[in-house]
Amino acid sequence: MKKENKQISKNISKKEFENLLVSSGLIHIFKGAKGIIWKPYGLAMMNRYMCFLRKLIPKFSIEEYFFPLLVDKRYLDKLNNEIYNFDKGVYKTVDTVLRPSGEISIYPVFKDIIKSVSDLPLKVFQISSSFRYGYKAGIFRTNEVDFFVEGHTAHASREEVEMQVKDNDLLINQVLVYFGLPVIKTERPLWTNKPVAEKSYGYDAILPNGETLLVASNYEQMQVFSKVFNVGFIDKYKQYTNTFQSSFGFSFRPLMILLWQLCDQHGLRLLPSLAPIKVSIIEINPDNDINVASLIDNIKQKLQNLNINFIHDNNSKLSLSKRSSKYELQGVPIRIEIGKKEIDSGFIKLMRRDNFLFEESSLDNFNNVVNKLLNNIEADLRASLQNIFLDFQVYTGSSLDIINILKKNKVAKFSICFNRSCIDGLQASVGLGEVLGTSEQVNNGKCIVCKKNTKYIGWYSRRV
Amino acid sequence: MKKENKQISKNISKKEFENLLVSSGLIHIFKGAKGIIWKPYGLAMMNRYMCFLRKLIPKFSIEEYFFPLLVDKRYLDKLNNEIYNFDKGVYKTVDTVLRPSGEISIYPVFKDIIKSVSDLPLKVFQISSSFRYGYKAGIFRTNEVDFFVEGHTAHASREEVEMQVKDNDLLINQVLVYFGLPVIKTERPLWTNKPVAEKSYGYDAILPNGETLLVASNYEQMQVFSKVFNVGFIDKYKQYTNTFQSSFGFSFRPLMILLWQLCDQHGLRLLPSLAPIKVSIIEINPDNDINVASLIDNIKQKLQNLNINFIHDNNSKLSLSKRSSKYELQGVPIRIEIGKKEIDSGFIKLMRRDNFLFEESSLDNFNNVVNKLLNNIEADLRASLQNIFLDFQVYTGSSLDIINILKKNKVAKFSICFNRSCIDGLQASVGLGEVLGTSEQVNNGKCIVCKKNTKYIGWYSRRV
Repeated sequence: MKKENKQISKNISKKEFENLLVSSGLIHIFKGAKGIIWKPYGLAMMNRYMCFLRKLIPKFSIEEYFFPLLVDKRYLDKLNNEIYNFDKGVYKTVDTVLRPSGEISIYPVFKDIIKSVSDLPLKVFQISSSFRYGYKAGIFRTNEVDFFVEGHTAHASREEVEMQVKDNDLLINQVLVYFGLPVIKTERPLWTNKPVAEKSYGYDAILPNGETLLVASNYEQMQVFSKVFNVGFIDKYKQYTNTFQSSFGFSFRPLMILLWQLCDQHGLRLLPSLAPIKVSIIEINPDNDINVASLIDNIKQKLQNLNINFIHDNNSKLSLSKRSSKYELQGVPIRIEIGKKEIDSGFIKLMRRDNFLFEESSLDNFNNVVNKLLNNIEADLRASLQNIFLDFQVYTGSSLDIINILKKNKVAKFSICFNRSCIDGLQASVGLGEVLGTSEQVNNGKCIVCKKNTKYIGWYSRRV
Repeated sequence: MKKENKQISKNISKKEFENLLVSSGLIHIFKGAKGIIWKPYGLAMMNRYMCFLRKLIPKFSIEEYFFPLLVDKRYLDKLNNEIYNFDKGVYKTVDTVLRPSGEISIYPVFKDIIKSVSDLPLKVFQISSSFRYGYKAGIFRTNEVDFFVEGHTAHASREEVEMQVKDNDLLINQVLVYFGLPVIKTERPLWTNKPVAEKSYGYDAILPNGETLLVASNYEQMQVFSKVFNVGFIDKYKQYTNTFQSSFGFSFRPLMILLWQLCDQHGLRLLPSLAPIKVSIIEINPDNDINVASLIDNIKQKLQNLNINFIHDNNSKLSLSKRSSKYELQGVPIRIEIGKKEIDSGFIKLMRRDNFLFEESSLDNFNNVVNKLLNNIEADLRASLQNIFLDFQVYTGSSLDIINILKKNKVAKFSICFNRSCIDGLQASVGLGEVLGTSEQVNNGKCIVCKKNTKYIGWYSRRV
């Protein structure tokens, strides 16, 4: 394969990435708005993601509901009084609040629906918006988060919830596989006075600047919320018992992080599996040569038969470089330029957006080549996401090292005990950043703090 | 065809209909919520409707955008100061308001995006929520309206808007055809001091109680809003000009009205084209006869091959009548009961939900019969909607008659001039209800008020 004469630089700052999302037509950023304005190209990706979720989640017997966004204020008051003060940033209006997340809108309805053990398990999910003010503008922290996905399940026993939390994990993994986004999965330390769950798992992605960002959560709530909202049932011993519950959530952040990880100074690079348009065909035909037109028709027909979305650009008023850089900016995986040259040579050049390599194909062999290239682009980009992810993590046995690792915009990884004294102790000694949490391993290591044997690995990062 | 021994009564009050929506599992009504809670069975219909819209609307070159729900308060203030007071019922919180409808969230972005004539036309639609407090509980008037669809288009000339309004009308008609819902389409009288459009068209359905309800709107706005929000462009004479605009909107009301029109005292009756489940198979097999099981497998395979969604109910613990009345309640178009009797006879009974007629089919002929019945149910229910619609309208030449027509829960139809004196005059003399608007006809009639010749027909109704 040959390569176009293009340099690739992947050193894109957050600000540059935000500008790229706007210039490529995914979103519009507007000062007067409290959230992101999604444009057709971005929504095409989001709607496809929503379709994927609406197929995926019911496979776990979790069914879609829609609960209103406006919630009676007294349900927020309940949380504030009985768990801790959730008030911060909540939009209040007349006697209602705008849902900061689903609990206060969903659990009062759970109480209304669940009467006996035959109403359990109740497993719901919702795709909706959530609201909190006080965030600065930026794509990862907005006052209004749209397309927020959350699941809530209520069960008759602790054991069922433990099983459900494993199911939630499988579900979250499927979502991350959809995007090809690797994450650090940890159990969060929950050593506050009034924890919101008995166990809590976080899924953090690593951003190109080395910061980590939570992309999904999974909570083994048990009875923490069901006691507050009086969600309960009459069990087999005719006793009233509060339901045992789990919840999970994720937003469109995985898509945003993925796009940032993959982009270069020429624009987006989309996974073919996510790209609304997989192939751009640029017609170079100033003389309206019918041979060129008919070759293009032929190729369009082939792409249609292969069920590959394409765009046909016949706007000869603009220069070729302007036209091709538009599709580079949008991250369209393959570009084809067709003009008199292709008629003469009998060969069609297919240009990869991801690495600017190109391949020449005869018309007969076109189907094979285009399919092969799309598969290769998909595989190469997914592999690069894995490599970037591994490169960002630096293992260390010394807590003094951690600050250097963080300063080099990396994430530190180490053996540590899953207990308060070691984790809080480490945090106090490093100062900068935060312990994400820990994950249980097969093999033992020595705790970075107390030097005792431990089977837990911990991660330390700067969080967004 | 034979008929099950069932009576059909279609005299269902609004309250009974609301209870039916809850008992059939479409929605849940909960006092603590400001909108409707959609359950999986209802959402399955809504999601399908959304998919239909996302295919339909782009065919009119109107692309989907998502604008945030929270809007800077100063944009509402602009409307209040420059058109009229839109404040009523608007939820306000900190420095933002919750969108009462799209104008204040969309037009400031239009101003930001549109610079020159090359940015026009800009045609967007959004599926979103809108909010106003002060409504009583009930499915047709809620404080929060989710799944609200609205389109907004900006153009360089008046003529383009006139064309666009015709396109909007075609689009709205396609939506109403999807539901099979006939409407009264009228031009609204707009004789206030500060109208929100130059022309406005309303699409009103007739409810089973004879009231009318607006289900869609189409506005020839021209420059009314673009002047307020300073949306403009540099035209070909290098002059700054405000854009010429149109807008349209509709919610899920057509679905609700359709369901109310079609239901009977046994439950819902769904159009097969809208039904999430088209066939219920009830297995009557207390002895676990493998012949019964294999016949059911055979039929399931046939339905799968025909791409017909079905549910297989093998819950033999409940009585047959309980099981079958559940699917009647849910409005599943066809019910099949399979047990030893069907093995012995070799015939399968397919029962229509809409009229309780049933047909017996051999296994060989099953595909033909099930397809034919689904088509017949679809056609018969759609025809009944048209008949009901026509029956509700009573033509009259005398304004004294109108009050009697309204008291009989009907809608009055008459010739009238499309001018303020005749329409306001009629309204003053009748007192009850309202003139919906008028529609231009081919033939002349005599105005019900001034008795002069007119080519306009008007409608008079009690509105919800």
